[in-house]
Amino acid sequence: MWLRTSCYLEFDITVPTPFIFMLRPRSGAQQWIASEEYIHQPSVPITEFTDNYGNLCQRLIAQPGTFSISTISVVQTNEYSDSAPGAPFIDIDLLPDSTLSYLLPSRYCESDKFLTLAAEISQGCLLGYDQVAAITQWIRNTIRYETVGSETLLSAAEVNQRGCGVCRDLAHIGIALCRSLSIPARLVVGYLYQLQPMELHAWFEAYVGGRWYTFDATQADLRGGYVTIGYGRDAADVAVFNQFGPPSYPTQTRVEVELMPAKNV
Amino acid sequence: MWLRTSCYLEFDITVPTPFIFMLRPRSGAQQWIASEEYIHQPSVPITEFTDNYGNLCQRLIAQPGTFSISTISVVQTNEYSDSAPGAPFIDIDLLPDSTLSYLLPSRYCESDKFLTLAAEISQGCLLGYDQVAAITQWIRNTIRYETVGSETLLSAAEVNQRGCGVCRDLAHIGIALCRSLSIPARLVVGYLYQLQPMELHAWFEAYVGGRWYTFDATQADLRGGYVTIGYGRDAADVAVFNQFGPPSYPTQTRVEVELMPAKNV
Amino acid sequence: MWLRTSCYLEFDITVPTPFIFMLRPRSGAQQWIASEEYIHQPSVPITEFTDNYGNLCQRLIAQPGTFSISTISVVQTNEYSDSAPGAPFIDIDLLPDSTLSYLLPSRYCESDKFLTLAAEISQGCLLGYDQVAAITQWIRNTIRYETVGSETLLSAAEVNQRGCGVCRDLAHIGIALCRSLSIPARLVVGYLYQLQPMELHAWFEAYVGGRWYTFDATQADLRGGYVTIGYGRDAADVAVFNQFGPPSYPTQTRVEVELMPAKNV
Amino acid sequence: MWLRTSCYLEFDITVPTPFIFMLRPRSGAQQWIASEEYIHQPSVPITEFTDNYGNLCQRLIAQPGTFSISTISVVQTNEYSDSAPGAPFIDIDLLPDSTLSYLLPSRYCESDKFLTLAAEISQGCLLGYDQVAAITQWIRNTIRYETVGSETLLSAAEVNQRGCGVCRDLAHIGIALCRSLSIPARLVVGYLYQLQPMELHAWFEAYVGGRWYTFDATQADLRGGYVTIGYGRDAADVAVFNQFGPPSYPTQTRVEVELMPAKNV
Repeated sequence: MWLRTSCYLEFDITVPTPFIFMLRPRSGAQQWIASEEYIHQPSVPITEFTDNYGNLCQRLIAQPGTFSISTISVVQTNEYSDSAPGAPFIDIDLLPDSTLSYLLPSRYCESDKFLTLAAEISQGCLLGYDQVAAITQWIRNTIRYETVGSETLLSAAEVNQRGCGVCRDLAHIGIALCRSLSIPARLVVGYLYQLQPMELHAWFEAYVGGRWYTFDATQADLRGGYVTIGYGRDAADVAVFNQFGPPSYPTQTRVEVELMPAKNV
Repeated sequence: MWLRTSCYLEFDITVPTPFIFMLRPRSGAQQWIASEEYIHQPSVPITEFTDNYGNLCQRLIAQPGTFSISTISVVQTNEYSDSAPGAPFIDIDLLPDSTLSYLLPSRYCESDKFLTLAAEISQGCLLGYDQVAAITQWIRNTIRYETVGSETLLSAAEVNQRGCGVCRDLAHIGIALCRSLSIPARLVVGYLYQLQPMELHAWFEAYVGGRWYTFDATQADLRGGYVTIGYGRDAADVAVFNQFGPPSYPTQTRVEVELMPAKNV
Repeated sequence: MWLRTSCYLEFDITVPTPFIFMLRPRSGAQQWIASEEYIHQPSVPITEFTDNYGNLCQRLIAQPGTFSISTISVVQTNEYSDSAPGAPFIDIDLLPDSTLSYLLPSRYCESDKFLTLAAEISQGCLLGYDQVAAITQWIRNTIRYETVGSETLLSAAEVNQRGCGVCRDLAHIGIALCRSLSIPARLVVGYLYQLQPMELHAWFEAYVGGRWYTFDATQADLRGGYVTIGYGRDAADVAVFNQFGPPSYPTQTRVEVELMPAKNV
Repeated sequence: MWLRTSCYLEFDITVPTPFIFMLRPRSGAQQWIASEEYIHQPSVPITEFTDNYGNLCQRLIAQPGTFSISTISVVQTNEYSDSAPGAPFIDIDLLPDSTLSYLLPSRYCESDKFLTLAAEISQGCLLGYDQVAAITQWIRNTIRYETVGSETLLSAAEVNQRGCGVCRDLAHIGIALCRSLSIPARLVVGYLYQLQPMELHAWFEAYVGGRWYTFDATQADLRGGYVTIGYGRDAADVAVFNQFGPPSYPTQTRVEVELMPAKNV
């Protein structure tokens, strides 16, 4: 399916402020970017680099006044995400080297604290995909989706104690639980078609049966229409923007995802 | 300065043909891609990867019939390329690791065969930028720019013997001469504003005085308006397309570079 | 100076246990490995890969019984670590891309929680090296070095609250404080000549004045004789071993660092 | 099997001479380095980096006088190299990204000139492993192994015309022929147990049936006992040493490979 995604962020800047943005989706094995636009206003020098995870990051210093970033992409992505009940757990010695760092605890996914809980939730499951599916279902049933107070980043353990969180928080819990079962898991930030309410989204992927699969506890069912902007171990790695100096939050955020008729691509 | 570049390639495909294209400019330290479009018709599965040099490459299998790629970019680049007479030769032990592979002979730049010639050409020059400038001027004076027979890739030694070549051939000679003086040099493929006649272009960069500088023996003077698509050791690394199976040349190639009024960006 | 380092780890394994070790120092800009030995007994298949930070990691599955790793290196390293009072803070827009991930909060270094404290400690300091020196001195004065209970990994915030910790904990606090001042900081694990008591050691590096400098709050003064095994954002990245399945701690650990007469090298 | 490899190179240096050596074998999936020693005399500053292919390279400047490098490794490697008649050709669209650069022509492997010959040699073969085996056998039958004049590096086309060459030359022809059939192929430099006469060796690997396989036209049969020092597209990438300035050849070269009783490892 073809989607047109757009994200507009506007800031009121009071002092020159260094930013690192991660707002440019990449073509890869799972999605193809047919066109793309990235406009910052007013214009300031901007450079781009690739981080350790392969994400494209943009560096700039915003000057005092109103500063905005507007990005638009036309992306071909899967209409349905792959599901694979029964896909087996991969023994650690057979995991590709590149997945190993996704087994370790990270800033917001203290997998070392979730061993008992993960064992309880996944008890009786076939090892692998079914464990992750059980974890996802457990989060759906247990952690209330709630956007209040989402600006403070909480860790998976804190979110679990609190019992509610935003998409990123639910993904963090899923990741921490998977890793505690020795299943590599990573955070994905991006767009989801028909997300309600529409905004930037976060979900997670787990490595079972020899590849990465998509899981999303915020949705009732597995679906398609995901567009990836960035990957990482958790939200510390995949911030849509990192800003240095006095904190500065967007005064406006507009996110849109539209279905495109294939013929117009 | 802001440029709008476009490249259209059309092929008549007779058997399913694997291609690797390198047609997507990247944002980096020297240029910023504000928008970009990459359309292939008819649509076939396409994936993208990054090669050893950091270039974006697109893989696909074209099916029999007419197949076309159309790419458009809006790019901010330097209006004038930096010139640095006197910039010193960097001793080999002080070169960054990443430049070292650009000292070695490569498929089309047999620098091992150019020692004597390079010494002659650069005799009396300050070591560094001035040597490269002398090399570039020598190529301007000695190797006739001529497009006849350009479809066969020749090596720098072959081009030198023949005495004429296209932009890529002139760059190969410049690279081979630089490397034989222990100056790292690499091929760049991309666009040049107001190139006559307009087509995809190739030039070279040499590492002196602590950074890469642009050199282009096909132009009477150093100028700006370059947009980089890819880097590499020579044309073997930076082919706009590599195609496997029975050779297939574009039946149509259209390249355009337009100056954009900044206000419309 | 030339050092001979050795590390012997012995485990009682009860079930086949996947391990990832990080026990092989690398030659680099700051140290040269002249010889090296890495013996695991009993022999099992072992492979090596390089992680995202450039560290060499060894993967194997230990079988039930006694399992040991013995590594020995002969290393040339600096007799005195460089000190650079007055070395300036590097503005974020001028930091090399490779340092940027060391600005972000990580599993055990929640720099987002240390803003106020860092500002207090470094008040009045020249921005840069002197801030890090003040942080290191503050840790020396404030956080008691204590090895009791060191097997549980605590975060910088937890260690700060508790008021005591091991070398790794003190380094985590230093790192968190630096990052909260927008100074890149990273954990280093390795050996230190004449460490009392001798064991594997951890310290931190901060990026000021255009390069990485060594800081170590566990030592009264800056000294030399450091041998690096691995780098990372914190102890989650640079574990000497990661082990999967039922936890298994070394039943024996022997670490030695000897000065070698240069003539015997 | 366990092998002890050693290489000693001695040079008479007349002017300070920058060198890049590639003499440090790495542990990987196919071999394990249990111990290793790398001594240069007299001692000069030396640093190490990893090239684009993952090889460890050592940089130094040798001072006038006698300069020597002595390296010793104890390595576990396969007693028999895997053979896989019938292993299929991998369609280009299914090749891993990392193999694609090994499809292209390179300095000494002008695969673009070998299309007809490769088609002739491999006529009637199953696509894949059997083509490479036929190529290897053809080289054995056609290109005489001869060490005279081996110091001048010739390209595959030049060697083919001449009809004789050293191990590296025979490997270059094998690589060029494979690539012209769209089979990824790369040069390997290292040690071979019981090589006659004993010296550093070169052979090639081809990617068929989903992995790299070893081929060696200098040996009557496929055998084991290979120890890899470095990989690359051809000898331009995998020089045991690159030296800059007036050419300087080793005045002494001693290479040894001994079988070790496993109990002594």
